[in-house]
This record gives sequence, C-alpha cells and structure tokens, in this order.
Amino acid sequence: MLTRLSSAAKEVVIGEGPTVLIGERINPTGKKKLAAALMEGDMDVVRREAIAQVEAGADVLDVNVGVAGLDQVKMLPVALKTVMDAVDVPISIDSNNPEALDAALKLYKGKPLINSITGEEKAMASLLPLVKEYGAAFIALTMDDEGIPTDVDRRVAIAHKIVDRAVSMGIPQEDVIIDCLVMTVATDHTAAAATQEAIRRVRAELGQNVTAGVSNVSFGLPERDVINSTFLALLIGAGVNCPIVDVAKVRPLVLATDMLLSRDEYSARYIKAYRERQKALEAQAAQQAQPT
Amino acid sequence: MLTRLSSAAKEVVIGEGPTVLIGERINPTGKKKLAAALMEGDMDVVRREAIAQVEAGADVLDVNVGVAGLDQVKMLPVALKTVMDAVDVPISIDSNNPEALDAALKLYKGKPLINSITGEEKAMASLLPLVKEYGAAFIALTMDDEGIPTDVDRRVAIAHKIVDRAVSMGIPQEDVIIDCLVMTVATDHTAAAATQEAIRRVRAELGQNVTAGVSNVSFGLPERDVINSTFLALLIGAGVNCPIVDVAKVRPLVLATDMLLSRDEYSARYIKAYRERQKALEAQAAQQAQPT
Repeated sequence: MLTRLSSAAKEVVIGEGPTVLIGERINPTGKKKLAAALMEGDMDVVRREAIAQVEAGADVLDVNVGVAGLDQVKMLPVALKTVMDAVDVPISIDSNNPEALDAALKLYKGKPLINSITGEEKAMASLLPLVKEYGAAFIALTMDDEGIPTDVDRRVAIAHKIVDRAVSMGIPQEDVIIDCLVMTVATDHTAAAATQEAIRRVRAELGQNVTAGVSNVSFGLPERDVINSTFLALLIGAGVNCPIVDVAKVRPLVLATDMLLSRDEYSARYIKAYRERQKALEAQAAQQAQPT
Repeated sequence: MLTRLSSAAKEVVIGEGPTVLIGERINPTGKKKLAAALMEGDMDVVRREAIAQVEAGADVLDVNVGVAGLDQVKMLPVALKTVMDAVDVPISIDSNNPEALDAALKLYKGKPLINSITGEEKAMASLLPLVKEYGAAFIALTMDDEGIPTDVDRRVAIAHKIVDRAVSMGIPQEDVIIDCLVMTVATDHTAAAATQEAIRRVRAELGQNVTAGVSNVSFGLPERDVINSTFLALLIGAGVNCPIVDVAKVRPLVLATDMLLSRDEYSARYIKAYRERQKALEAQAAQQAQPT
C-alpha cells in the first residue's frame, strides 16, 4: 500500500523502498527558544530548522505551532508558508484545531499529511471532512473517547474503525497512516512490546503504512538515547515505515536498519550518506581552520 | 525450551527471561597479543579477559585457542583450566578438534557448551559422540558439506537435520542451540534479512534456543558499530537469546532491547546496570585523582 505525499515540486512515496523520515523539530513542545520566537511571530528559527532538517536527510517535515496562548489559526499558516518557501519537501501539518488546519490547508501546494486524528467521535467528525475536502493523507492515532488502550486488540480495533470511517467517506484507504502510540516502558514493562505487536497486526490485517514517535518510551530512565535508538530499530523491524524523528540524530541508524532489512542494494544509500557526512565534517573543519 | 549450562558452582538457563550473553573475547582471531601469549603458554591475558568479561556482565565465556601452529590438544585444557580458576561462569568450549575437545571436556566441571558442530557428515560423526558422552550442550551451525546456503529454506533444513541427528543419538533436543550464521550485507544485500528470517523459522518450527555473532554483517563497511548494534537489536527481536558478543560494548544495548521486549519488570535490570556502570566510573575517577 503506497501513500503519496507531495510539495509543489516533489513527491514522496511511503510504503516502497527505504524508511521515510518525518522531521520532528518544528514543534515548540519543550523548546523554549522556538516557543518564544513563535509567540513573537519571528519565523527565523522555523526557517533554519526546516533547512537543517532537510540537509540532514528529512523526507517530510512536521510543522507544529502549539504554544499555549498562541493564535494557531493565524500562525499555523504563517509557519507553513515559511517552511514551504524554505524547502521543497512535503509537510505534515500538525494540529487538531479544525480552523487552523483549514487555514493552513487552503494555502498548501501539493498533497500534505495531517497529523493527527484520533478515534474520538468529535475528532473524526470535525477533522475527516477536511482530509476529504483537501485530498490530504492523515495520521490516525489508536486512541478513542476512552483514552489510550493498553490492550493490543483494542488499539488494532481503533485502527480498523478509523480506516473504515475514512473509507466510508470516500477517503482512499492508503491515505490513512496509523500511529499505534508509544507509552513509557518504565511504568508498564509490557508497553513497548505491546506497541510492536499492535504495529505488526495493523500491517498484517490492514496493510496500512505506520508511523511512530519513539521518545516517550524512555521517559524517566537514564541514558535515553540507547533506548530510543534501539526501539526505533525494533519498530522499523516491526513495520514502521515513516517515523517522526530527530533526523540528524537517527539517520545513520535508520540507514543501517534499512540495509539490514534488504532495502539497500550494494549498501549504496548507507555508504553515500556516510561519505556526505564525512564531506560535511571536512568542510566544517576547513572553515574553522581559516583565519577570520 | 530451556538449555541449562553450568560451571562447578553456577547454573545459567537459556530460554527464559533475559538474553544470556556469551563473552567472545578469549579468541585469538585478529588479536595479536592474545595469539602471542597463547603461543608462549602465558595465560595472563586469558585470565584478565575472563575476569573483565564477567565483571562487564558476561553470563558464559567462550574459550578459543585457535592459533596456527599451536597444539590445541595441549593448550585448550590449559586455557580452560585458567578460566575455570578465574571465574565461576559456564564455558563455551570453542573448537572443532575432537581430541582437543575430549581433553578439555575431561577436566570441565559442570555442563559446558561446545562451539560448534556443523551439519557436515564428518563433523557430526566425530563431535556428536563427545556431546553425548560428556552430557554437554552444543551450538549447531546451519552449514553442511555444500557450504553455507544463502537460501533460508536450506539453512532451516540443516537445523532440522542436526537436531534430528542429535536426538536420534539420545542427546536432549534442548541441548542443541542453533546459529543461523551471519553473512556480509555489503556483498549480498539480502543476507542480513535472510538470517533474521531463518532465526524466526527455527524458533517457530523447532523451538530451539538461538545464538549469533554479529560482526560479520558489517564487514567492508564504514561505521561498523552502528550496523552491528542495530543488527544485534534486530536479531534479539527475531529470536536470538544467547548471542556471542563483546559484552562490555553491547550490554547497555542488550539490556535496553530486553526491556523493550517485556523482559524487564520495573526496568529493574536496566537501571541496576546503569547504576553499577556509574559507580565503576566514579571509583575509577577517584582512583585516578589520588596522589600516587
């Protein structure tokens, strides 16, 4: 099953070949500097993050302006326009505010991803019509009006429900990307395995493409990087093919994982990315060595 | 299926709970210093490697004295005795020389692992009787007189063949640990996925416990550590439960992987190992700060 996203000039296809990386860094959660800049309407940080992530190998960029007190209806389109002007990759418009999404979708050129829609009745009722109207793809979260089920069966059932609802409205099935949700393993030692199992079942039963964010899993634990990167490899092994990640940090690991899952003939992508990183480091070193 | 190994004082059970780590460092392949020491009959390096690996968390130690020109029949028992005197973990006796194995098995206290026996007729005929005689467990390699098959079906068939042969001789089925062999991904981009698939099938069809060494996979490629550690996580996810590894290097990753596969309630093992590493680092720093 192929999900096609596009910017004005570029198409990205999820579901064939290597893992598609959605860059997570344009999101003010936990980022004071970005939050302050967004509050002031200063788009410099957004622009720089967009360019840096695409240079690091992001295939799609997530854009989120969720700061308490900020007018999303006004600022989501501004941030979106900034990113569209700065880079040419498809965008994941990250909001559950219908008016903000509507304003953003109006000016988007291409086929965007909407991140995200839960199985809550209110969310489906208010957001799926926008998906349909603008011909977008969207990320479906496996939670509903009763919260996030710890139970694998119930998460898979919610995935089925959202897909069925979307299809019944005329949204193509391949435009639903599932996020099986990652919970903290320190408070429930079965949580990480449950997510992997839910992902395997969604892939087997529905065939949908699957996304995930990994960092929740290690909340409260020391040396989170080793947990997060190990989990990302396991999730890709389980069927995640478009994770939302800090691209600069995880790309070598994702390239290695793709290579180890038969998706990189002659190790060509892995070696090319390595050489590009080496070249960038050399250029940096040369610049620093120059007299100022 | 549980495989029990033991030293004189300690039992290690493979197949329940967390991953069992077999320490790989007492092996002269590619280690000039160890090779030279073995040639001179100097057991200091062997002793130090044994202690260091157990301190780093090794559950079992592999002992290999394979240096060209060295008398294995004489030296394998000497090295084995050195390790038995230095630490109390079970040992994987690593040789395919029947006389050397016989001499080593004679003096071993407990139930050892023999590493390894292929599906070659000659190997099975000469080595399985030793397994039977001494009540050992052994690692079966999925290769035979025609070499290492690239084909998954044939590797699984060889695993079946060796298990059948062992069982027909009265060796308990659980004492056969399978190694599905790891080939280089740079020369065959399907090689790493084939190994994972063979492991899944061996676990599903036979139920045997499974070991693996990972480092071959990255031969000829840059930044081998990221490939090897990613592969180790994927292999454990596929069913490997007693890999042969450089324990100090990979233990944090293996503990994270076990935690992410529901094998670490309250993240207790992960947190304990982290604290022990911190304490060791602090002790080291304190020692270095002392006036000499």
